[in-house]
Amino acid sequence: MPENGDLRELRRLFHRNPEPGWCEFWTTAKIVEEIERIGVDEIHVGPDAIDSEQRLGVPDEQELSSWMERAKDELDDHAVLDEVAGGNTGVVAVIDNGEGPCVGLRVDIDALPIDESTDSDHAPAAEGFRSTNDGFMHACGHDAHITFGLGALEELSNRDFSGTFKVFFQPSEELLGGGKAMANTEHVADLDRLMGVHVGLGRQTGAVVAGLDEALALSRFDIAFEGESAHAGLAPNDGQNAVQALVTAADNMYSIPRHEDGVTRVNVGEIRSENAANVIADSATAKAEVRGGSTQLMEYMKEAVYERLEHAAGMHGCELDVTVIGESIRQDCDEEMVDVVYETAVEIDAVTSPSRRDALGASEDATYLMKAVAESGGKATYIGIGASNPSGHHTPTFDIDEDCLPIGVSVLSRTALSLLN
Amino acid sequence: MPENGDLRELRRLFHRNPEPGWCEFWTTAKIVEEIERIGVDEIHVGPDAIDSEQRLGVPDEQELSSWMERAKDELDDHAVLDEVAGGNTGVVAVIDNGEGPCVGLRVDIDALPIDESTDSDHAPAAEGFRSTNDGFMHACGHDAHITFGLGALEELSNRDFSGTFKVFFQPSEELLGGGKAMANTEHVADLDRLMGVHVGLGRQTGAVVAGLDEALALSRFDIAFEGESAHAGLAPNDGQNAVQALVTAADNMYSIPRHEDGVTRVNVGEIRSENAANVIADSATAKAEVRGGSTQLMEYMKEAVYERLEHAAGMHGCELDVTVIGESIRQDCDEEMVDVVYETAVEIDAVTSPSRRDALGASEDATYLMKAVAESGGKATYIGIGASNPSGHHTPTFDIDEDCLPIGVSVLSRTALSLLN
Amino acid sequence: MPENGDLRELRRLFHRNPEPGWCEFWTTAKIVEEIERIGVDEIHVGPDAIDSEQRLGVPDEQELSSWMERAKDELDDHAVLDEVAGGNTGVVAVIDNGEGPCVGLRVDIDALPIDESTDSDHAPAAEGFRSTNDGFMHACGHDAHITFGLGALEELSNRDFSGTFKVFFQPSEELLGGGKAMANTEHVADLDRLMGVHVGLGRQTGAVVAGLDEALALSRFDIAFEGESAHAGLAPNDGQNAVQALVTAADNMYSIPRHEDGVTRVNVGEIRSENAANVIADSATAKAEVRGGSTQLMEYMKEAVYERLEHAAGMHGCELDVTVIGESIRQDCDEEMVDVVYETAVEIDAVTSPSRRDALGASEDATYLMKAVAESGGKATYIGIGASNPSGHHTPTFDIDEDCLPIGVSVLSRTALSLLN
Amino acid sequence: MPENGDLRELRRLFHRNPEPGWCEFWTTAKIVEEIERIGVDEIHVGPDAIDSEQRLGVPDEQELSSWMERAKDELDDHAVLDEVAGGNTGVVAVIDNGEGPCVGLRVDIDALPIDESTDSDHAPAAEGFRSTNDGFMHACGHDAHITFGLGALEELSNRDFSGTFKVFFQPSEELLGGGKAMANTEHVADLDRLMGVHVGLGRQTGAVVAGLDEALALSRFDIAFEGESAHAGLAPNDGQNAVQALVTAADNMYSIPRHEDGVTRVNVGEIRSENAANVIADSATAKAEVRGGSTQLMEYMKEAVYERLEHAAGMHGCELDVTVIGESIRQDCDEEMVDVVYETAVEIDAVTSPSRRDALGASEDATYLMKAVAESGGKATYIGIGASNPSGHHTPTFDIDEDCLPIGVSVLSRTALSLLN
Repeated sequence: MPENGDLRELRRLFHRNPEPGWCEFWTTAKIVEEIERIGVDEIHVGPDAIDSEQRLGVPDEQELSSWMERAKDELDDHAVLDEVAGGNTGVVAVIDNGEGPCVGLRVDIDALPIDESTDSDHAPAAEGFRSTNDGFMHACGHDAHITFGLGALEELSNRDFSGTFKVFFQPSEELLGGGKAMANTEHVADLDRLMGVHVGLGRQTGAVVAGLDEALALSRFDIAFEGESAHAGLAPNDGQNAVQALVTAADNMYSIPRHEDGVTRVNVGEIRSENAANVIADSATAKAEVRGGSTQLMEYMKEAVYERLEHAAGMHGCELDVTVIGESIRQDCDEEMVDVVYETAVEIDAVTSPSRRDALGASEDATYLMKAVAESGGKATYIGIGASNPSGHHTPTFDIDEDCLPIGVSVLSRTALSLLN
Repeated sequence: MPENGDLRELRRLFHRNPEPGWCEFWTTAKIVEEIERIGVDEIHVGPDAIDSEQRLGVPDEQELSSWMERAKDELDDHAVLDEVAGGNTGVVAVIDNGEGPCVGLRVDIDALPIDESTDSDHAPAAEGFRSTNDGFMHACGHDAHITFGLGALEELSNRDFSGTFKVFFQPSEELLGGGKAMANTEHVADLDRLMGVHVGLGRQTGAVVAGLDEALALSRFDIAFEGESAHAGLAPNDGQNAVQALVTAADNMYSIPRHEDGVTRVNVGEIRSENAANVIADSATAKAEVRGGSTQLMEYMKEAVYERLEHAAGMHGCELDVTVIGESIRQDCDEEMVDVVYETAVEIDAVTSPSRRDALGASEDATYLMKAVAESGGKATYIGIGASNPSGHHTPTFDIDEDCLPIGVSVLSRTALSLLN
Repeated sequence: MPENGDLRELRRLFHRNPEPGWCEFWTTAKIVEEIERIGVDEIHVGPDAIDSEQRLGVPDEQELSSWMERAKDELDDHAVLDEVAGGNTGVVAVIDNGEGPCVGLRVDIDALPIDESTDSDHAPAAEGFRSTNDGFMHACGHDAHITFGLGALEELSNRDFSGTFKVFFQPSEELLGGGKAMANTEHVADLDRLMGVHVGLGRQTGAVVAGLDEALALSRFDIAFEGESAHAGLAPNDGQNAVQALVTAADNMYSIPRHEDGVTRVNVGEIRSENAANVIADSATAKAEVRGGSTQLMEYMKEAVYERLEHAAGMHGCELDVTVIGESIRQDCDEEMVDVVYETAVEIDAVTSPSRRDALGASEDATYLMKAVAESGGKATYIGIGASNPSGHHTPTFDIDEDCLPIGVSVLSRTALSLLN
Repeated sequence: MPENGDLRELRRLFHRNPEPGWCEFWTTAKIVEEIERIGVDEIHVGPDAIDSEQRLGVPDEQELSSWMERAKDELDDHAVLDEVAGGNTGVVAVIDNGEGPCVGLRVDIDALPIDESTDSDHAPAAEGFRSTNDGFMHACGHDAHITFGLGALEELSNRDFSGTFKVFFQPSEELLGGGKAMANTEHVADLDRLMGVHVGLGRQTGAVVAGLDEALALSRFDIAFEGESAHAGLAPNDGQNAVQALVTAADNMYSIPRHEDGVTRVNVGEIRSENAANVIADSATAKAEVRGGSTQLMEYMKEAVYERLEHAAGMHGCELDVTVIGESIRQDCDEEMVDVVYETAVEIDAVTSPSRRDALGASEDATYLMKAVAESGGKATYIGIGASNPSGHHTPTFDIDEDCLPIGVSVLSRTALSLLN
């Protein structure tokens, strides 16, 4: 097992600099810097690491620019930053030892729009590595995930093996925006085995779950109806009422038939149309999502929602614009990979509570990479690394027991080696 | 003024034999018989009197046949009946005295699906001319209208005038099904002046209103959604729910925006989908109507309803079928014609209460003929002939004071003569 | 195993005389006659066999009378018929051998409103035991169930055992109307063990399933809104629109939130409001149902539906009437009972395909009796007896391979004996 | 006719200092200052001028404070400001000449949240009297109305008459928030005659309309549903969905039946519920309004809306809060008053285009004062004073031809004098 000192420093470095999805400019550059320090055979950055066309939920130009400026202020060398401009973040690092299997590890690198606690009980605050980007925070442990990726690279770079080892530093997981874009690359196409990984999730340090899955597939979208304004008193007939379109749509979205094959979900979380009371609304927007117990069920719901949206717009003379801003599928873990990880984990002393399988209990877009691997005949799993947390994920006092860092690196690197040798 | 004896006999003859819209087979044949007795220059029957293609609300083959059989049983001569088969009822009678204006009178000839009272206070029952067609009744005075038409023909046939006089015996007014079909003929195309007429309407015998109008324009339609059935417990997703389509449609029909230009109305009077509780409905039907303070307003509502129906169907994967079963427009009376009628009426002793204008308070498809006349440069009015009624229109004890018959014939024939001389 | 001859005759006797739920007058009397022939210790009939107050879906007086008259015509002895008047059908037969366990068998006795096939391929038609009650048919095998009940009674009446054996001939299962009424009696209160049974269900003769369950709990109800009529053109504001109330209710019923605990279902199968297009509906009715993967889930849906119905009525100024016309809960089989039945079945030569458990795939109100037994500390199961059917349940050509009769009687009576000795 | 110089200066003074409804602190103090300069018998300010309890649409404490601070910065003397704190603006000025009729003039004093044009074509910008309160503007001519009120007071203060003359400087007309509060005072209770007045409205300088009315009655309200939040994926059943409540409410508000008695309107102009897509909304708000061709029709709509809101809340387990934020009734002009004003106007040379009556074409809460006067046996009218405007009311370039000022003062003061002498 590696020494924790360097891993801890790495993790704290990234913890201090959280960036949201598609804005991980500093993060990407810093990862590249670390990879270069380690020394690998190939580094693919930005548009070479992802399929730009497949990105979902990319922020607007203004937000991208603001984060880029911040990154430029922080870094002297702008070479990597220039490569990732426009929200093309992410890295793929490759150690290529020739003939042999191709094994991948996927970690995610983005942070959340949460204002980190300044409480003295909160270790990052007390020990001086609290977020320096106000309003943003690594509140889901992706700082640890980056550390796992770099740690595993370092471990593998010192070992003899036949084949190829790749680490995928995926952007924009929180938005469910980057998985599809990274899955759709040649880097994934030749993988024989893939490990995804998540820290924490309510499990204590020492716990390792070899296969986490059964997530609901999820699609999130922004909806906009554009109609025509009119004076509600003088000429209500002149309007094309976007509020009525939205009301009819929402109404009919909630009543999409349940499905014989399993769980479905639908929600309209946000509705907005701001006007005076006497104005017939010419525009109305909503944020909505659908989920399914399988990718097919999610797609059944999504298609049904689209049908309702289109006809609600048509019924009320409105134009409709729908943008998918995040999506994840369901892809369960391969039993053979679960075996390999489990058998590796039980051999590690620090792993005091190994287990085979459990439910993930959240959506995750690593599933796109897992599915791509499975479709080309490979095998994948998604591994849970326990980390005693003082507070739940996505809260301002989220933190991880840093003892999880060497455990994670060990489990991942040893599994990789066992697959490569 | 004509003697009442023959008029009364005529009215009672038709009162005894009420037939509903497009089934006025006996009625048409009997009118033709009377016209032939009077002697005119042209008689146009059935397909020659109306535009068959424009008929609305024609009953199904079975109902047509049943009424035709009844008519054949009653009459020896089947020649006219054969002409009007398939619901092509109606007559146009023409007295053509060469050069001169062309003046028309339009009367309607159909009855209502109302079971006539057998009460001894009800004159038709007491005096032996109650309906012989069970469940049907001349409960709106169209028997008097036919009598007006025949009486006026008889009056004019005995007079010297230059020009042409036509009487239009229009079928299917109660369904608002015949007006458009009769308006769209060459017989109407050359009219310079047109009189419509209605008896009763709450006015006493001796009252005459020279111009009745301001009716709401009206469109009635049958709606059918066809979806796909499914078991509500086992596979709700397999259905295309016609009940949901109808619910969404009805919901959105009632919420069509009010219009700045005036009165609008919408109603879904009937909804039907009969299934067990566990069946997702594959079909649902409705009867609905819209009205407007003008023809344009009715059309605004109709168009909006269609848009909602189509999109409600699309939203729920259903096929839609909409059939207009009755329609009337708004067409107000021409001031010049109102003058002529009023001036004629005040000259008749029996007209004790002449007036110029009032609101009709009901829908009426004579408006199609009035509009056709107006569009080709002619002028039209719709005349009210008072008749003290013991009971309201469309009730089982409706009757008319028969003293209205010679008054009506006088007003109509003298007005015609004043226009023709 | 018993001889089949008498069992076959019995089954055909009942097949010839199908009666719908709560109208099983002839059936009840004939069952009593057979039980008396066998000789038991107690016979409880009608109001003594069920809790009349708990009956659901009892037909109206007219339908009850018509079936009672038919029964009286068929039978000389009217004693039992007088006891069951007013829809109080059903029988409990008891063999009381003193000290020892109390074991019950529940069978159902009602038929379906299906017109039995006259096809020469249909054995009942070909062999002369087709339904003599036109439009009604034993199309779900309850004739076999009655036969199982009588056969088991006969078997037990000839054996030595300690304890009590009861057979429950339950009325009105197809309506899900009788289970609750029979469960809520003292006859069920002291049961230690209970067997329910169903024939066929797609399994071949020789198959026996020791435990069938996992049915969705179900509640069906009739809904009526009463508002106030008005003329849609003249005074739409005067109405209290029952169609709008129903539309709002249906709309909101389909959108009841999905539940984290499992499967839910809702459907509005029928909607009805018959009026002319220009009438604002003063009444509208619907037939609806909800289901749940558990009784609690069904009740969650039912409560949510009621809330929506009440407020839809209130919103549109209508009175609401809701009547539950059928209901079933979910109650799964007890593992210990499944063991006993399975072990008994494997000992019977004719049982060529015994199995332990399977999903029932339909709703069933025997669950009320099973639950009552479980709640008082007893154990219950629901047994499937295979019967090669030429056609599916609830079809006009449904029939059973009568070889299933002695198999069913054997499984049930031997299981009972093994529990009693 | 008075000289225009001082009137113009007055109007520009108020134009420079626009304040929104209930925040007319500076305005009220400045009006009092002017009245004191003129010299009258009584001045009633703030809580003595209005019934505080009846105010509608009072802004929150923060907004009130911000405007009060601004007023205090502008003025040395804070005595009046202290009286009107908390949004109790408005003034009543009384000239009491003993015995005789009591005649009132009502003007409104509030401005609009419109950012005044800085265009050089816009006279207030070009001539240096543009709004100094950014984002607010006298864009409906209430600066002229104040000037009319002060000008009339000055005229009357110099004349001999018997009776009482009162000027009502009413706050918060744009919100329809002050009329009811001012009507419900003793100052209005003893009026025999009342004049309301509006400048512009599309009429040129020199036009005077003696009676403007037929406004739609109007009620505006803020709606808030409070439900319970839940995770849309994990436990949708745990929520009480405020978005669904609002959707059901809005849907059913638009479908309130049209009314036989005349025009009705309803609109939901704003809807808001801001959440992530995966959150079941615990709160949703809306801004809505109803209108009617009469006060009764407005109240019919209002009552129907309330019924729908309450039941939509109940249906979805939400709490409802509805606050009326503005309301106006319909009260038409008294014919006798129209005569008096018209006869006065035709005598004034500058009134080049006098007329008797026209439609107001907007809502107006002077109607509350007019109705109070009518109910106590008095008579009222609402007068239009033409003013050639370069741009429409409620636009950033609205302005008035200041030649209208002496015309308005003349018409109002001479009418008052003719009523008082």
